Amino acid sequence: MTELRPGDASLLRKVNTQVTLRALRREGVATLTRLGRITGLSRQTVEAVLDELGERGYIREIPPDEGVMGRPARRYGFRADAGHVVGLEVGGDGVVVALADLNGDVVAWERAELGDDMAAHERIEAARDTVLKCVNGAGVAHKRIWAVAAGTPGIVDRTGRVTLSLTLPGWTGLDLAEVAGRWFGCRGLAANDANLAALAEHWRGSARHASDIVYVLIGHRAGAGILIGGRLHRGRSGAAGEIGTLRQVGWEAAARDLVKDASAAEVFEAASKGDHEARERVERYAEHLAVGASALILTVDPDLLVLGGGGYSQAGDVLLEPVRRHLAELCVSAPEAVASTLGDEGVALGAVRLALDHVEREVLGLQ
Amino acid sequence: MTELRPGDASLLRKVNTQVTLRALRREGVATLTRLGRITGLSRQTVEAVLDELGERGYIREIPPDEGVMGRPARRYGFRADAGHVVGLEVGGDGVVVALADLNGDVVAWERAELGDDMAAHERIEAARDTVLKCVNGAGVAHKRIWAVAAGTPGIVDRTGRVTLSLTLPGWTGLDLAEVAGRWFGCRGLAANDANLAALAEHWRGSARHASDIVYVLIGHRAGAGILIGGRLHRGRSGAAGEIGTLRQVGWEAAARDLVKDASAAEVFEAASKGDHEARERVERYAEHLAVGASALILTVDPDLLVLGGGGYSQAGDVLLEPVRRHLAELCVSAPEAVASTLGDEGVALGAVRLALDHVEREVLGLQ
Repeated sequence: MTELRPGDASLLRKVNTQVTLRALRREGVATLTRLGRITGLSRQTVEAVLDELGERGYIREIPPDEGVMGRPARRYGFRADAGHVVGLEVGGDGVVVALADLNGDVVAWERAELGDDMAAHERIEAARDTVLKCVNGAGVAHKRIWAVAAGTPGIVDRTGRVTLSLTLPGWTGLDLAEVAGRWFGCRGLAANDANLAALAEHWRGSARHASDIVYVLIGHRAGAGILIGGRLHRGRSGAAGEIGTLRQVGWEAAARDLVKDASAAEVFEAASKGDHEARERVERYAEHLAVGASALILTVDPDLLVLGGGGYSQAGDVLLEPVRRHLAELCVSAPEAVASTLGDEGVALGAVRLALDHVEREVLGLQ
Repeated sequence: MTELRPGDASLLRKVNTQVTLRALRREGVATLTRLGRITGLSRQTVEAVLDELGERGYIREIPPDEGVMGRPARRYGFRADAGHVVGLEVGGDGVVVALADLNGDVVAWERAELGDDMAAHERIEAARDTVLKCVNGAGVAHKRIWAVAAGTPGIVDRTGRVTLSLTLPGWTGLDLAEVAGRWFGCRGLAANDANLAALAEHWRGSARHASDIVYVLIGHRAGAGILIGGRLHRGRSGAAGEIGTLRQVGWEAAARDLVKDASAAEVFEAASKGDHEARERVERYAEHLAVGASALILTVDPDLLVLGGGGYSQAGDVLLEPVRRHLAELCVSAPEAVASTLGDEGVALGAVRLALDHVEREVLGLQ
């Protein structure tokens, strides 16, 4: 714990507040006595801190259970609904929005379809409409939205600006973080979609127990996100994991071949039913996917490879089996390969995590 | 700083010793008064600690300069020669040995040529002979060797065992760390050669000011080492950076083509003099090198790419120029690419750093 000089009263008060809030958030509900014991602070200090936190709306007093005799000890709880965050994916063909409380529990989802060829301002407007529909539908006041984070394909720098988009018209140069923050006059954040999906998978998906993770987000264009030691590795310019842009890897051509006359789900369905041509097509796709994944694996040597992306990750063994087989051939030491369990919600959920990280650090002072 | 209970005397003494030794090592030479001021310890405590460190041979009293009048203050210095470490490279065609003191200053080098087809026990014996020649030639007592670290091609796990070697006969399964430690009855360590060269480049080479680094060790077989946040990233099985094993990258075939009828140095020399066939050969080699480097770069998005490897890294612009040109084409955001400044000494120097890290942490308690 930070050592404080006795005279440094305001800093001391801030630290006491953080310690108490952290303890209460972990405990869920606690009495004043219990909080004093956990934090090591005096009863008087805890009382003062709780008053302040109550005024700010971060905590509330929990009414005593009915039927309790005598004078029950006062109990306090963290108000997870004191604020909310919005996480969204803005992709080529759709928007997915998640509204979550301060515990990260998603209280509302909203989706909309978009066209590949929409102009940037139309795409932004559609994203904004979907976000507002989600927040208004849940009855959350706009001033209670403390941060909005957006995930999108392409290279997004540390400030949340899209520095390169090869798929979305007019997207290169867009300050997506600034745009997203403007909707509620709060902090906006933005990151690459595959990076956020990797973050979500570590938080709530298949990769909870892994530390170094390679996540491949499959789709018309595949991207990858990398976690090192459980933390997102974005790289110097935000381009970490952009192996899909390497022509030699052949991801884009392989994806085009896969869906040339049917949706990916249809091809996987046909293949799983034994259709010969569909099986061959999936086999070719799996091989290309494995070559790119191998380049990532032979660079990072991760604990786990996760394949995600709505419609693709749900293919199951019909895709996973050939991918695993090719990985075993290509990699001197192939890690376990699993499918994402988050369906098409990974990117939005990762955006929620990114927004929560900001709120916990900058607003609540919890990290 | 760790908080200590007043009764915890032996731990307190240990911490005081570490603090004083760290201060003295940083200062080089210091008086008792100065050490007291830096460490915040009492004169009496510093005196007791210095006595103990003197008995262990880690420090010595520096005699006063001649001609100083009156009674000069006693001065103490860290004894960098109290112990030594050995760092070596055991490769396909040679051994390079560096003997260094506790400051990491190399006091002796030794080299020997080896044959590609030597049996494992012959290669080990040749390495041992070269190491002994180096240590004995420098007149350092064997008991003063505190750690030996070896770098070698192939996959080396965290315990220092070679789990896969595609080049050296009988090398797979060798516990190289154990073998190296046996020579002086001290701690032995081992790691992949490219990983150690990357470490050296960050310590004393071209990459001193970079944090995320991709280092490609060029040779008959190219390997790569990766630093994230200035720290070596070895991966789950020690296979991080093994992109050269991916056939699609084509490094091995390209290297064979480059040196099919001459040494690499000769081809680079001819190319730099304008020989048309040599230039074309270097161009092809550079393109393949750039494809593999791009796979690493598009995964990690590093601050810096370093090309190393004796004979290759000295090629200079005749190789660097086409590599940079291809990287710019292949990577959405190519980092700066530079040549190693450590020649063929990089791997051994990185092994010295690995051994020193062990000694500083486990013997001196400095990290």
